[in-house]
Parts: sequence; structure tokens; C-alpha cells
Amino acid sequence: MSKSQIGVYGLGTMGSALALNMADHGFDVAVTNRETDWIAGFMAEAGDLAGKLHPYDKLKDFVAGLATPRIILFMIPSGKPMDMMIESIAPLLEAGDTIIDGGNADFHATRRRAQTLQAQDLHFVGMGVSGGEKGARFGPSMMVGGTAHSWQQLRPILRRIAARFEGDPCVDHLGPDGAGHFVKTVHNGIEYADMQVIAEVYGLLRNGAAWTPAQIGEMFERWDRGPLKSYLVEITGKALQYDDPVTGHPMVDVIKDAAGQKGTGRWTVVEAVRMGQSANMIEAAVGARSWSSEKDTRQQAQAILGGARSAIDADADTLAEAFLASRVLCYAQGFRILAAASVEYDWTLDFARIAEIWRAGCIIRSALLDDISEAFRGDLPAGQLILAPKFAEMLARTVPALRQVVASAVHGGHAVPAMSAALAWYDTMRQGFGTANIIQAQRDFFGHHGFERLGEEGKHHGPWWD
Amino acid sequence: MSKSQIGVYGLGTMGSALALNMADHGFDVAVTNRETDWIAGFMAEAGDLAGKLHPYDKLKDFVAGLATPRIILFMIPSGKPMDMMIESIAPLLEAGDTIIDGGNADFHATRRRAQTLQAQDLHFVGMGVSGGEKGARFGPSMMVGGTAHSWQQLRPILRRIAARFEGDPCVDHLGPDGAGHFVKTVHNGIEYADMQVIAEVYGLLRNGAAWTPAQIGEMFERWDRGPLKSYLVEITGKALQYDDPVTGHPMVDVIKDAAGQKGTGRWTVVEAVRMGQSANMIEAAVGARSWSSEKDTRQQAQAILGGARSAIDADADTLAEAFLASRVLCYAQGFRILAAASVEYDWTLDFARIAEIWRAGCIIRSALLDDISEAFRGDLPAGQLILAPKFAEMLARTVPALRQVVASAVHGGHAVPAMSAALAWYDTMRQGFGTANIIQAQRDFFGHHGFERLGEEGKHHGPWWD
Repeated sequence: MSKSQIGVYGLGTMGSALALNMADHGFDVAVTNRETDWIAGFMAEAGDLAGKLHPYDKLKDFVAGLATPRIILFMIPSGKPMDMMIESIAPLLEAGDTIIDGGNADFHATRRRAQTLQAQDLHFVGMGVSGGEKGARFGPSMMVGGTAHSWQQLRPILRRIAARFEGDPCVDHLGPDGAGHFVKTVHNGIEYADMQVIAEVYGLLRNGAAWTPAQIGEMFERWDRGPLKSYLVEITGKALQYDDPVTGHPMVDVIKDAAGQKGTGRWTVVEAVRMGQSANMIEAAVGARSWSSEKDTRQQAQAILGGARSAIDADADTLAEAFLASRVLCYAQGFRILAAASVEYDWTLDFARIAEIWRAGCIIRSALLDDISEAFRGDLPAGQLILAPKFAEMLARTVPALRQVVASAVHGGHAVPAMSAALAWYDTMRQGFGTANIIQAQRDFFGHHGFERLGEEGKHHGPWWD
Repeated sequence: MSKSQIGVYGLGTMGSALALNMADHGFDVAVTNRETDWIAGFMAEAGDLAGKLHPYDKLKDFVAGLATPRIILFMIPSGKPMDMMIESIAPLLEAGDTIIDGGNADFHATRRRAQTLQAQDLHFVGMGVSGGEKGARFGPSMMVGGTAHSWQQLRPILRRIAARFEGDPCVDHLGPDGAGHFVKTVHNGIEYADMQVIAEVYGLLRNGAAWTPAQIGEMFERWDRGPLKSYLVEITGKALQYDDPVTGHPMVDVIKDAAGQKGTGRWTVVEAVRMGQSANMIEAAVGARSWSSEKDTRQQAQAILGGARSAIDADADTLAEAFLASRVLCYAQGFRILAAASVEYDWTLDFARIAEIWRAGCIIRSALLDDISEAFRGDLPAGQLILAPKFAEMLARTVPALRQVVASAVHGGHAVPAMSAALAWYDTMRQGFGTANIIQAQRDFFGHHGFERLGEEGKHHGPWWD
């Protein structure tokens, strides 16, 4: 038997889908799984593709079945399991082999692992994979970190299995060590915020205009044919139009309003704050998920504080414009975090290319990303997406609608944490002379911290100390 | 010479002030400093108190000059310097001695240090000290962590030097290991948010009503005689009424609108997010400081996006009510973080007592804290301050003003990140049925994550998977 070109360890939802995708594109794929009794079931479901999939029970045989230098993709839970697997497999590998972690790992851990393995001349790639199960099976967007050597190994396979946008594969090598996982983390942060904005639009129409889920769903379906076209709008439109097979009610009406989260949103917030890039829309989305989990408290609070909400003064077109403004601001915040990390970790990230590989396959794919990649290839004042001519013009046109929606929501008692955060950030950033002079005055007053004077370097103190 | 009751290492602003405060209360205090040539200057400035202050050049002599079991307070930069000092001094100490870190340390580091020293039977106290230089000299608020043994040692001294509220010293033992430093961190997080709300009020009057700094200052002075009475309102009122000795302009007009930060605000955000307690007002305040530092970008953005701001529709009384609502919500968020940490680290924090020791001496002291401590001693639905009868009633009265202010700001293009965050959180928490059902539908649709059905445990999937 000839050697396989790549090995996939971990046959859960994502690992299985990626292995099938590779086999489908003609690659020979060695497969294995911690629980070896899963393997037969996977092979049975592989059908016609089984001929390209080579199952192994033993790690040693799995490794031996791979062409060298080897490529081994791990699709397993992040954290400790990854460290344990590295410990088991590293002694079986040879200089030049590459281990890929395709899960949502903390990029700090990825950096650490890459460094540790480097000492053995082994390469460690942190790779972000977006697109869910379907994406993984038929074309994900993949954000690849690691060495140039690894990218040379991976490139032919990944470009074949990736999603394509007008023929261009949605995968690239973004930088060394943790760059791939970091970009994926921020991708997910943007995803959190975009989902939250959608939830707020839904809430305004449900509570402020008494629309039915189906009506709201049809609206999202229409929006998916215009400038808001995107995967998340598409699936929201669909999900809202399903009925519950059990009760016959609209499906979303029987889903508990308590959202889960797995960590990438929080990581984005933490890293952004650490780098002085508070991305307040992503913070709002992470916050909204946290608060949603406190359903008992919210029910008590509604009884005590009143949940009364009045009608909103905004039609669907206004909401669409408000959403578009929010989405632009959300992407802009995401790219600010990427820019800060690129400097901090010396990654020289290519923002235009990142936008390009997000145009298909991934969860946040949207019509805007093509414009974003163009903006990054063009002249970007202060490196800020919101200052690119096309986006500045788009914001000038759509922000008034965002103001109307937020003001109306605020008046009516509707919660719009992400949309109001968007506006708060936008209005802060276009203040040439802001209000932090007061904060500096206070800090000097109580703590003798000192301040700069306008147009003058150096530390000064106020006359309150004289 | 008799032995000193306590030693102070580090004669910077805060260390000097605390040593003088102790001497002033009759304690014998051994003092030293890394740069020993500072010591003479400090002694010269001590004047009459010099008799109670015992300077040492050598660490060994400083330690030998202390009564046992020893108490040594370090007032030095946090982080590495503290670890280095522990390494130097620990070999000189004996079982039962206590080292105090009185700086703003990361409570995780405090926990680690306490555990390390425990092996040598040495006690490590993380102590938060608030009140700035004046507070430290004439009565700070102190938040003490560590062992009961250490508290027995420290109690007599700290209760004498602390600020007092109606006779009650503003100091207490709050819990083991990192409890004191954590409470201080959250204190500072609240401080950030309160300062930001003040900056927003100032900005609305400056940009939306063309008030002069002096007029705004007089307003804060008036507010300091009502329910908004607080140290931060008091000093803001004063600072706004100073003129710059150099230019003759109002002082705040020549201070650069770029705020510094030293870490405690960010730590609060990170810890809150980690524990699922996103405190979005503190996030907003940390964000506003970060964004303020990008002055060049903001100036470019104003040129491109326009900084035009229209008049606000809110008088001073409305602003005062909006501020009061924001302040209540801000304290409420702070205490939520404390509650989460108390569970996570098994600290059994006494929230009423924390509010009490914040009533005088510290930067966030305000008229509200007495009500807050009462609320925590009473019946608190779901442990939430906003649901205490007195605060629920206060919010019912003041939130309409907050809505008016935020809506007016949003319409007019004024940045109000903290006030709009306050409202977003409040409106989210009083939604018995929120909008996270849509987020769960999306997550299940693209990632097969599953959701709970209303009133039914267990994991379900949507009909889109059938």
C-alpha cells in the first residue's frame, strides 16, 4: 500500500468532514481516533470514498502509514488533549514533519507548542477552520499559521479542499506560530458581534413591532439579496421560518434564550483589552451571551423592574441601514485587533488577504468582505477601515439610521448592547478633542499622576497642587 | 532602642504617606528604601514625627529592628520587584512574620505568593489601599486579604490609621490570599466607570450646550451637596474651576484628552469576562481610555467623518438623574463581579462590609454606599443590587432621565459609551424572555451545537437538521 499524503487524527464532526473532503479531492488520507471503535462507523459512512481513506487502530501504524515529511492534522478538543497527543506522537516523528492543530486553540498555547516542537525540528501549525460541518466537508475557510516549510507541505492539499470565491481558494498562510489561530479567534469575535446585532434586530421587531418569526425571517431572506448578503443573515432567515415539529409553534419561540459560548469570543475581548484595542461590539456580544445565561435573574428582574417596551419608530429599511452601519463598524473593530496583534507579535498580517479568505466558506462571509479587501489594498488613512473613502461614505449614509434605531430602542426600553456600542465607539473616534482631559485632571487631582498639555510633551501637574 | 511595631519598605508617595500616618498615630515605624539616599530626605520632611520613624540602610538591620512576629509593608511597584524583594527578605524572616503588598497587584500573583510563602510559615497579605496620597496620609480605605493570623497582627495598626465613617474604621479583613487585592481591583474598575460617566456628562454640556468649564464645575459642586455626593464629583467640580497659570485658559481646556491607565481597569474587565460577568460599563470606561490615546487617529477621523454634534435635549437636573441611575448600575456591576469571584475562589466576601469600608477614605466613596451596605444586609432578590427595593425604586425614578440623555446624545452625535452601556445592561437584565434564542438557533444551524427548549432540560436540535 502506498503512503498517505496526510493523516487526520480525530473523527468527530469536523475531523470526519475534513477527511472526507480530502478524500473527495483525490488525496490518500490516513485516519484514526482515540476511541478506535468509532473508526469502523466512519469508514462505513464514507461510502465510495472509503478507498482513499486508510484507517489505523494504532498511533504507530498511523504514523508509519504517512509519506514523509509527514502532515498530521489533529481535530480534537483544544487544551490538555492537544498537549497529551503531542507528547505521544512527537517521539514517533522525524525532523521536518508537521503537526496541525485545526481546533479553536488559544493562540498563546499554539505559540508555546510551536516553540517546544521547534527544538526537535518538528513543525507545529495552528490552523483556524471556519464553516461548520458543511464547510469542512465541502469547502471551509482556513487560516494557517506556522512555518513556511509547513505551508509548502500543506498548500497543495488545503487549496484543493478550501471554499472558493470566484475561483480563489479561501485559505492562506497568514504568519508564523499563533497567527492562524489568532485570526480565527478574531473571526469568531466578529461572528459573535454580528450574531448579536441580528438578535437585536429580531428583538426590536418582535417586541417593538409585534412581527411574527416568519415575517422577520422573510425580511432577513430579502436582506440576503442586498448589501447585507451574508451567511448569518441567510441562515437566520431560514431558521426563523421553521416550525417546531413538537408543538407546531415557530421553532425560535420554543428555544431557550440562554446562549452558550466556547471561549473564542472571550479570548477576543481579553486580547483586545490587553492590547489597548477594546472592541466594544464584541464585548457587548460576549456580555449579552453571559447575561442571557442568567434567565432566572432576568425573570425576577422583569417582575420587579418591569419589562414594558414600547413600539419602535423604525421600519425595516431603517433597520437594514442600521445593521449595515453596525456591520461595517464591527469588521472595523475586528481588523483593529488584528492590526494591534500584528505589531505586537511581529506577524506582518496581510489584512486584505485575510478579508479575501473570509469571502467564502466561513461563518462571517458577507458581501462586505470584498469591499474590505479592496479598501485594505488601497489608501487607508491611519490604517482605519472606517476612514477608507468607500466606508466613510457608507457610514455617512447609514449611521443616521443607526442613530434612529438606537435612540428609539433606548426610549422604548429595548436592549441593544451591540448597536449602541457601535455608535459609542464611532462617536468617540470622530472626536478630535475628546473628554479624557477630565479624566486626566481627576487622575492628577487624586493621585498626582500628571498629564500632558495639548501640543506639549512631558508630564505636568494641575494648579491644584500648587 | 525598642523594636518597631511595623516596617515600611518603599518611601514613594504612598509609602511615605502611610509611614507618616502610622507615626502620627503613635506607632514606631521602621523605614527603608531601595535607593537609600532617599531616606534622609524623607526623615527631614517628617519633622516632629521623626522620633517615631526609624530609618535603616540595610535590609538586615531593618528586619532586625522589628518586633516579632514581624509586619513588613511593601509599597513598591507591583510585579517583578515584589518577587525580587520576597526573595531577598524571606531568608531573614521567621515563622509567623507577615509581608504585606500594599500596591495594586494582580490578585493571581498575590495568591501565588501567599502559597509560596506558606511553605516557610510566612504570611503574605495582599492589601488594597485607596485614597491617593492624601488618603494614605490622613486616612485611607484598606482592603485586607490574607490569613486570620496576619489580620490579628495588623488590626490594631490599620484600624487606627484608616479613614472613618461615623466612627467606623474603613478597613477590614475581607478574605484569604488574593481577596484584598481583588476587591481593590474591582474598586478601581468602578472608579474607571464613574470617572467615565462624569467625563460624558462634561462632554454633553461642553459640546451640546456650550457650557464653560467653570459653569460645569459649579454644577458638580452643587451635585456634591445632593444624592450624587462623592469624592469624584467633588474634585471634578474643583478641577473644572481652576485656570491654567500659564495661559489663563480654564485648566481642563489645555489638558490633552488622552487618558493613561495602569492596569486595574483592564484586570477588572478580564476577570469579569472570564467569570461570565461582563461588566459593560467598566469595559466602556477602559475602552474610552484606550481610544482616547489614539488622538491622531481621532483628529483624522473628525476631518473625514465629521465631528458635528448638535445641541442636547437635557437640562442639568435630567443629567443628574441620569448620572445617579448610571452610578447605581455601575456599583451593581462591580458587586456582581465580587459575587462571582467570591464563589469562584471560595472567599465568602461580605458585600455589606465592603460597601461600608468604601464609605470613607477611598476614591469611589459616595453617599450611595451607605444605602448599598444596607441593601446587602437586607433581602436581595437574586443577590442583585438593582432588585433591592430601595434601588429598584431609585432606578424606576431615574432611568427615564438616563433614557432621555442617551437618546439625545445618540441623536446628536455625542459619545456616551458608559451611559449607553448602563442602559443596555439594564434593559437586557429585565428581559424575562430575551433574544438569545436566535443566537442558539444560529449556533445549532451552522455548528450543530444544540440548544435547550424552554422549560425542558437537555440538548435539542432544530428541524433544519431533519
